[in-house]
Amino acid sequence: MIRSPDNDKLKTIRKLAQKRWREKLGLFAAEGEDLVAAAAAAGWEPRFVLRAGEDVEPELLHAVSSLGSGSRVIGVYEQRWSSPGGTLSVWLRGVEDPGNVGTIIRSAHALADGPVVLGPGCADPYSPKAVRATMGSLFARPPARAGFDELVGTRVALDASASDRLGDLAPPLVLCLGAERHGLPDDLLQAAEATARIPLRADGPESLNVAMTAAIALYEAANRMAGHG
Amino acid sequence: MIRSPDNDKLKTIRKLAQKRWREKLGLFAAEGEDLVAAAAAAGWEPRFVLRAGEDVEPELLHAVSSLGSGSRVIGVYEQRWSSPGGTLSVWLRGVEDPGNVGTIIRSAHALADGPVVLGPGCADPYSPKAVRATMGSLFARPPARAGFDELVGTRVALDASASDRLGDLAPPLVLCLGAERHGLPDDLLQAAEATARIPLRADGPESLNVAMTAAIALYEAANRMAGHG
Repeated sequence: MIRSPDNDKLKTIRKLAQKRWREKLGLFAAEGEDLVAAAAAAGWEPRFVLRAGEDVEPELLHAVSSLGSGSRVIGVYEQRWSSPGGTLSVWLRGVEDPGNVGTIIRSAHALADGPVVLGPGCADPYSPKAVRATMGSLFARPPARAGFDELVGTRVALDASASDRLGDLAPPLVLCLGAERHGLPDDLLQAAEATARIPLRADGPESLNVAMTAAIALYEAANRMAGHG
Repeated sequence: MIRSPDNDKLKTIRKLAQKRWREKLGLFAAEGEDLVAAAAAAGWEPRFVLRAGEDVEPELLHAVSSLGSGSRVIGVYEQRWSSPGGTLSVWLRGVEDPGNVGTIIRSAHALADGPVVLGPGCADPYSPKAVRATMGSLFARPPARAGFDELVGTRVALDASASDRLGDLAPPLVLCLGAERHGLPDDLLQAAEATARIPLRADGPESLNVAMTAAIALYEAANRMAGHG
């Protein structure tokens, strides 16, 4: 039973709240029974798992929690990165909110066979908030990292300025989404094999949350590929 | 220029971080230039607006911010509640996360003509996090409050256990969504005029985030009602 805050495992968890340390160590922490169970279900061997009252005094575990919700269990794992691929996947650029990145990883796991591919300027998918938002999908479907030019297939730029909704396109499809406010830069819109928009009401907001756009586009693309379009 | 933290307007903003005070005063605070501009665009008269450096010393405004992002402007407004209605709307039950409630208000504003109707157990849509997540849609489309039995139209229970996807149904449609983990209670599933599910991959997670489910269902229903289904 760990009874000192100076314990090495507790120190490691504290460090993993910072991106700098996550990159240096190649590790990340997953907080909560559901996430640790999801890791086990996906066959991930933890570096270590600490359970309150079993391995560590509860208040010490609570003190290193990044989520402030009094986690009863925290597991530490090695980061894994997939390669881009699949018949349907998502590429993100400049999506800075870790909750959005995590939620999109969950949606892609539910609706697509390919990973979420992170381009420049995205939140770290292994940050505590992003990991939590994936609800465990991170373990089943680790994210990938790649530039726009490295993507293979029909790159569909989702953009409010596009003239048409998502049509029937030749797979593999990569749905490309930009930052909440600024969207994708013009050169990428030009270079993409196709553009598409989600039709919004004229009396509505200018845009949807990027995670909503991703979910709807994934749904529409998956439907069309399954012949329900 | 306000130079004292004991100023009455600053005290009011501090109180409005608490649901108890929001209910008692019937007010709420909106932080940030975009939200205050959205309120003005929708014709909402503020009780008052405080701008850092103009009306109040910046550090005093920062100290009453609920979002910790150093807001430069905070507006205080009277809460408004719509009545349920429209040809397409959303009813929520037990959606406790304010970010999800706010995001769904934004999605409904983009995709439907009716309000988001809050049933029992939902987060306060006038909490700082919810208001922020609406990105201003709260002002254009204030939420409603009603029980399931008060809803008029075809109540469609979105539930992972439903056998079919959303079909063509007679409007007005009310898309009904339950809490993230537990879904809608059985008696509501029985009482609803229809049930529907979002088809997910067999190798995917058991469910989507409730805000994603709402966005996809709104998109699908709006498409069908527009004849694109």
